[in-house]
Amino acid sequence: MSLCSVLYTTTSNQDSQPVSGNQKLVSSNMFDLKKYVQEKCQVVNDTLDQMLQNSQPDETINNAMRYSLMAGGKRIRPALCLAASEAVGGNPDDALMAACALEIIHTYSLIHDDLPAMDDDELRRGKPTCHVAFGEATAILAGDALLTMAFEILASVPIENGDQSAKWLQVIQIIAVAAGARGMIQGQMLDIAAEGRRLTVNDLESMHTLKTGALIEASLQCGALLAEADQAQLALLKTYARKIGLAFQVADDILNVEGNPALMGKAVGTDRLNQKNTYPSLLGLDASKLFARKLIHQALQALKAFDNKAEPLRALATYIIERKR
Amino acid sequence: MSLCSVLYTTTSNQDSQPVSGNQKLVSSNMFDLKKYVQEKCQVVNDTLDQMLQNSQPDETINNAMRYSLMAGGKRIRPALCLAASEAVGGNPDDALMAACALEIIHTYSLIHDDLPAMDDDELRRGKPTCHVAFGEATAILAGDALLTMAFEILASVPIENGDQSAKWLQVIQIIAVAAGARGMIQGQMLDIAAEGRRLTVNDLESMHTLKTGALIEASLQCGALLAEADQAQLALLKTYARKIGLAFQVADDILNVEGNPALMGKAVGTDRLNQKNTYPSLLGLDASKLFARKLIHQALQALKAFDNKAEPLRALATYIIERKR
Repeated sequence: MSLCSVLYTTTSNQDSQPVSGNQKLVSSNMFDLKKYVQEKCQVVNDTLDQMLQNSQPDETINNAMRYSLMAGGKRIRPALCLAASEAVGGNPDDALMAACALEIIHTYSLIHDDLPAMDDDELRRGKPTCHVAFGEATAILAGDALLTMAFEILASVPIENGDQSAKWLQVIQIIAVAAGARGMIQGQMLDIAAEGRRLTVNDLESMHTLKTGALIEASLQCGALLAEADQAQLALLKTYARKIGLAFQVADDILNVEGNPALMGKAVGTDRLNQKNTYPSLLGLDASKLFARKLIHQALQALKAFDNKAEPLRALATYIIERKR
Repeated sequence: MSLCSVLYTTTSNQDSQPVSGNQKLVSSNMFDLKKYVQEKCQVVNDTLDQMLQNSQPDETINNAMRYSLMAGGKRIRPALCLAASEAVGGNPDDALMAACALEIIHTYSLIHDDLPAMDDDELRRGKPTCHVAFGEATAILAGDALLTMAFEILASVPIENGDQSAKWLQVIQIIAVAAGARGMIQGQMLDIAAEGRRLTVNDLESMHTLKTGALIEASLQCGALLAEADQAQLALLKTYARKIGLAFQVADDILNVEGNPALMGKAVGTDRLNQKNTYPSLLGLDASKLFARKLIHQALQALKAFDNKAEPLRALATYIIERKR
């Protein structure tokens, strides 16, 4: 089940109780996000499928990689990458390999985060986690293989000239920094260190900015960079990315309180049970919803200088806090 | 303890009982490998140290990364990379970042291979393994961070022109393929699958060709490629790499039978105890030594077309089977 299969259009969610409350965010009313994301998901899924077929490695590791990569991720990072490319007037096809690599890195991080030595999760998207399905050794190696594959893909894009080569090196650098010890991995270390102790809201924000925010920011930057965005556009998209990245996490915390387990493919109430540091636990549920809404408002403000080619980004911002899973 | 601190010159090992037997391999008699490797080790170690300082991540993860990266690896892959660059007339400085990235990837693979879910090793180079020293979660993340850092380094080399960019993309691709699910990781999967069952010599060779051979081959290819090697040179270096890569593993197996634990920083006899598939167990000790010697002879044959700039490569081939650890 991917983003395309669960999204409702932002024009037809009258029956929902979105995080954003009763006052609907109006920016994307004219844009059919469902159709947009369905199309993007299709391309990304087909490309990922093809990549796995081409890689022809050891059968077991291939099965484990495919199991996690095609397990119904929401494909938010690829969608953001492609939408950023469009927002600055680019052809999203040019960013497709970056979009896929970002999803592959996201998937590796989930496999390793779920391991017994880390979060020890047994369910992910309604299915047994990779190590439950394939054993711990294979799960560790499948994660390693996906991370490595992402960089292989980024380095293998057919190139027409030296400028393009330089741009892809920059993309690799951006993604490696975001995924590495100064980004996502540092965030995971902070998350582990936070276990059993109470964080401040600032600490929580720092942790999420690294753990999920860094790769989301990289998704936007890479899409825009490959579409020849200028510095001003990159700066605005960075603001947008930071706001929606954090809002995404706030929404996740809220869903863990009042989400529908059937839609989410996992249990709710687990954060409270595990005494995790979350926005609802620190701010309360209503204030968390208000905070998420404020972040999305700020994200949309950052897009004011963009024309209607940024409609997908606007709609995705709204989706982030209105999603059901 | 690194290669530089344990190497003896190939001109002064009269008191040793090398794998190659009494008849000494003569190719490198005039070359002072000890001095060469000391110099290369120094540059590589200084550069790795600087890279870790620059990365400034979370303190715990930085400590774990540094602990494993500076634990006294033999630096064979960097030495081979730099020596390949020299062999085809290049400036080894141009390949330094590739040499460091290769060592970083090698180190990540050791950290993950040592994990309880994999080989469950508690000692590496005479010190507690990363997960014993820092805990399993940190060790998994330190491995992930090192792998990611290697690609960041490869994408961050200062570039002067488009041709150089294209070349570094090719280097990233070569290393990612060698380290990934069609290379090193597939080898590790084969190793896991072989536990408890008897392999043929062919199966054992396939496993080692992937598990250690692929990254050794990539080390040679990257060094040569960055020095503008032609196709004929690359093909010969590939043969050299395959032969020494396998010889390296045969020598490892022999050391596990008759090595000196004090020099090796780990116990010997463990392969037999764990009923591992090794060359001595399949071929016998004497035939294994003969096989290693034959492989090195073939590796040296492949270098015949090269002039004396390939002396470091010749000496390294000899070292591979004469080493004490």
